Amino acid sequence: MTFSMLQMAKDTQLASQQVATLPTTTKNDVLQAIANNLRSNTANIIEANDLDIKNAKQSGLSDAMTDRLLLDKDRIESIAQAVEHIVSLEDPVGLTTSNSRRPNGLQISKQRIPLGVIAMVYESRPNVTIDAAVLCFKAGNAIILRGGKEAINSNLALVQCIHEALQQFDIAPAAVSLVPDPDRQHLNEMLTLFQHIDLVIPRGGEGLIKFVTETSQIPVIQHFKGVCHLYIDKDADLTKGLDILLNGKVQRPGVCNSLETLVVHESVAAEFLPQVAKAFADNDVKVHACEQSISYFDNAIPATTADYDAEYLALEIAVRVVSDFEQAVQHIQTYSSGHTEVIVSQDICAVQDFVRQINSAVVMVNASSRFSDGGELGLGAEIGISTSKLHAYGPMGLESLTTEKFVVIGDGQIRQ
Amino acid sequence: MTFSMLQMAKDTQLASQQVATLPTTTKNDVLQAIANNLRSNTANIIEANDLDIKNAKQSGLSDAMTDRLLLDKDRIESIAQAVEHIVSLEDPVGLTTSNSRRPNGLQISKQRIPLGVIAMVYESRPNVTIDAAVLCFKAGNAIILRGGKEAINSNLALVQCIHEALQQFDIAPAAVSLVPDPDRQHLNEMLTLFQHIDLVIPRGGEGLIKFVTETSQIPVIQHFKGVCHLYIDKDADLTKGLDILLNGKVQRPGVCNSLETLVVHESVAAEFLPQVAKAFADNDVKVHACEQSISYFDNAIPATTADYDAEYLALEIAVRVVSDFEQAVQHIQTYSSGHTEVIVSQDICAVQDFVRQINSAVVMVNASSRFSDGGELGLGAEIGISTSKLHAYGPMGLESLTTEKFVVIGDGQIRQ
Repeated sequence: MTFSMLQMAKDTQLASQQVATLPTTTKNDVLQAIANNLRSNTANIIEANDLDIKNAKQSGLSDAMTDRLLLDKDRIESIAQAVEHIVSLEDPVGLTTSNSRRPNGLQISKQRIPLGVIAMVYESRPNVTIDAAVLCFKAGNAIILRGGKEAINSNLALVQCIHEALQQFDIAPAAVSLVPDPDRQHLNEMLTLFQHIDLVIPRGGEGLIKFVTETSQIPVIQHFKGVCHLYIDKDADLTKGLDILLNGKVQRPGVCNSLETLVVHESVAAEFLPQVAKAFADNDVKVHACEQSISYFDNAIPATTADYDAEYLALEIAVRVVSDFEQAVQHIQTYSSGHTEVIVSQDICAVQDFVRQINSAVVMVNASSRFSDGGELGLGAEIGISTSKLHAYGPMGLESLTTEKFVVIGDGQIRQ
Repeated sequence: MTFSMLQMAKDTQLASQQVATLPTTTKNDVLQAIANNLRSNTANIIEANDLDIKNAKQSGLSDAMTDRLLLDKDRIESIAQAVEHIVSLEDPVGLTTSNSRRPNGLQISKQRIPLGVIAMVYESRPNVTIDAAVLCFKAGNAIILRGGKEAINSNLALVQCIHEALQQFDIAPAAVSLVPDPDRQHLNEMLTLFQHIDLVIPRGGEGLIKFVTETSQIPVIQHFKGVCHLYIDKDADLTKGLDILLNGKVQRPGVCNSLETLVVHESVAAEFLPQVAKAFADNDVKVHACEQSISYFDNAIPATTADYDAEYLALEIAVRVVSDFEQAVQHIQTYSSGHTEVIVSQDICAVQDFVRQINSAVVMVNASSRFSDGGELGLGAEIGISTSKLHAYGPMGLESLTTEKFVVIGDGQIRQ
């Protein structure tokens, strides 16, 4: 039988009506069964993964990509533990978020409901298959998984663990559907099915996200890039500032909440930048410096506007000295990617102005940009980080996988 | 100078940063000035509108369309009053919606912020120019207005009233930008500018909404159609049921919250449908009836699945008898447009099950579907009704024109 993308979307949509009304306890029982199945099927999963790894090596996939693809006993155990963590999170579905009474006696409330069908488009990491499926399911959604072709055997084995758990509780397996044929033509078709799919979340490189955004007729949650700024104000505690700078740039430079640009008020530049220069030299951080700061660094390169736009994702940073607070805000508003910006300052007025004027998804005061993450912000788990403002902005947890309906209770009211 | 869509989007985006931080009092003062300007410029506006009306008649526009286009003293006064009503609504910007403390001492809150730049794409009603502009502005957004070419002279005169008010308070006129050339090619370009525009709201016929949805790379709020259902349960109060039915079908059949399908439990059909038949006959309502109900009506036509899908927007309705509650829910889930569904029942269990299982934007219990409207639900004013679940679902007020950012306050915390 040939695969039909449209039929899969319709089946998933039908299953979504069943998932939407499952009690929390049933959903949690299914998740626990998935975790158990992952553990008891570890050997099968590794066998399927071996096939993907072999194919990857034959087709000359890079070592880094092949490592992302790899599943071993430890990785499978940590995926199972992540599923158990989702069990412990509060179910957002059914929560009443507001309640009021109109003069005519109508009782108006808003209730959280699932989005319906979520399509996840991702690359070669097979752990996304489980992570995304269980988060969407816990929020009462059905899901279509479209992973990369490199991971297809691993994904089939992982989804088998999910399907067995669903069947154990009489839930339609289509509630978690895996596109078995990662052909680009099926993806193109999927992105037109706005009558059956409510949301698309692409997870991967900028090319994938750009393609999905430009092609999709379904709403897309975008996460383009994180060009995070640290602004050291004239009233900054410079010791904290240096800690926050190093934590943001050096601890894990390859992630989107790492720092890419340091903005320094000129009145503290002479005291702060020599300390920065030493710390950067000690940590092999490459510096792109503006005219006013370049003299503080050995081997710095003059910064261009391309540097202010850059997401280095490496031990590399742009440095700019500004003459006042307004210039700092202006620089950040011009070059921000809308992800995370940090101010270090002891001055309450500067902090308030910064929080008011900077409308990035996360605005940090005297804390590391590395906290800009669903887990660290208390969301429990993260399905992605949105840098577009619609629906969700910033790290997205379970609640972002729901919407709200109005519930109106009357006693026979009609409109005059 | 030739018009540049890209330049207009960039200018509007720059102005949006200014509008985002305006105090509520300034925004209200601007709105009051707009209302005043509309009144003092009534003669100019009518003169510009006369030109549009003349052109419309020459190009053979229908009488209904020409009436939509018409502005007279009374209509301008009621537009001015609508602006003054927006002054009285609460400003959503800056509201803190959650606040918590993490174990490491970080204080995490979420704050409402404007979306940024909103593009409104509409047809020939010039009142939308003012309504949309003032709602978006009150929520701290800048706006790009792209109305139909039939209304261009009226729109230019109306926007002039807004620009004078903005200039009086030193706000960049680009905060409310009107596309001066309603050429389709500029619209096409606009819909690609996702780096400068945050949201597109199309308002008009299904063709316009479909075109914008399929073309846009920017998130779109969709309002396709309202196929609203009324379900009369076996435990319904039939007197209330008949009132709610007539109010929903007859009071104003041409609007999206009017009823299109009546679903009746078979155990009350014999008692209820004769009353319905009489009331429909008295009100000239054309009936498309299922096999089980057709005998109750004179002149009814057999209902097809096309009837169950139809948004009649006229004195015309589909009627279906179901054997039980589950079949009623299934019918609604199959044919619902996600707008509004009503149950009439005195049985708390049936009501609860209906509210739980029907995930349309508005679920009504014992009240007329005609209350499904921003004003009636207490939102103060309405920018549109979303039938897609992302971002907003159902009637959208000021709050739907904002998003939330995380604000994180620390004391030097870094990530371990």
